[in-house]
Amino acid sequence: MTTHYLEDLQPGQRFRAGSRSIALAEIQAFAREYDPQPFHLDPEAAKATIFGELVASGWHTMALTMRLIVDGEARPAWGFAAGGVEALDWPNPVRPGDTLTAESEVIEVKPSRSKPDRGVARIRITTHNQRNEPVLVVTARVIVPKRSAGA
Amino acid sequence: MTTHYLEDLQPGQRFRAGSRSIALAEIQAFAREYDPQPFHLDPEAAKATIFGELVASGWHTMALTMRLIVDGEARPAWGFAAGGVEALDWPNPVRPGDTLTAESEVIEVKPSRSKPDRGVARIRITTHNQRNEPVLVVTARVIVPKRSAGA
Repeated sequence: MTTHYLEDLQPGQRFRAGSRSIALAEIQAFAREYDPQPFHLDPEAAKATIFGELVASGWHTMALTMRLIVDGEARPAWGFAAGGVEALDWPNPVRPGDTLTAESEVIEVKPSRSKPDRGVARIRITTHNQRNEPVLVVTARVIVPKRSAGA
Repeated sequence: MTTHYLEDLQPGQRFRAGSRSIALAEIQAFAREYDPQPFHLDPEAAKATIFGELVASGWHTMALTMRLIVDGEARPAWGFAAGGVEALDWPNPVRPGDTLTAESEVIEVKPSRSKPDRGVARIRITTHNQRNEPVLVVTARVIVPKRSAGA
């Protein structure tokens, strides 16, 4: 894993993260705690819902994506401390048994105007399933220190 | 709880959700699974990080907010099936022992141009802590059926 400072980042850079499978029981456990709706809990009841089948909560997909990114090949020196999210979409559903793979791309790098020791990197993270279909696309602002600021 | 169709919604409507406290052990358990960074895991190590103290993962705050909304006083007829998120910010950190309360406001209601049985409601959800400081603000598009579409 490499640790990045603001000076190390430029638009177009891509970083890989790992991959992970998601089982029915995990989908249901997350949903029971955080998103208890029929289409995330019950395969039979899900058939009559807008999804037509049991799918993972979009927040579960986001949380798993975060884990893949945190465990990935690159890390900003202060960690992944998001200044906010500009857009988050789930282009395709995540189903039990899917294997998810995440990657990130630097979109823009901006020094802070008010704080000389840091800047903001706009990062787009995309998560694909095993058929290479995108299941999550999120654009986030990450606070990144300049090298002079130290770790 | 009331179930809403597109015709029931108009900009400015507000709906309350419940509230919930968050303990240190929960913050750490979520972080171990989905966001294993020092500022979410270790109170001592967190002191040397950008946050200066242990705080909840922003995705944990989002997941708990989802739970509060799902359990809240209003529900779209097809459930909370997000068409996407337009913005998500964490204006203040969530600390162990905080009590979070969520509410939602309808921002815009648009019939679908391609699918006559549904539309999209833009909803802004705000979560506050026990000092009434906002800790999360998210604007999402929710797919809502017209009454004629049925449940």
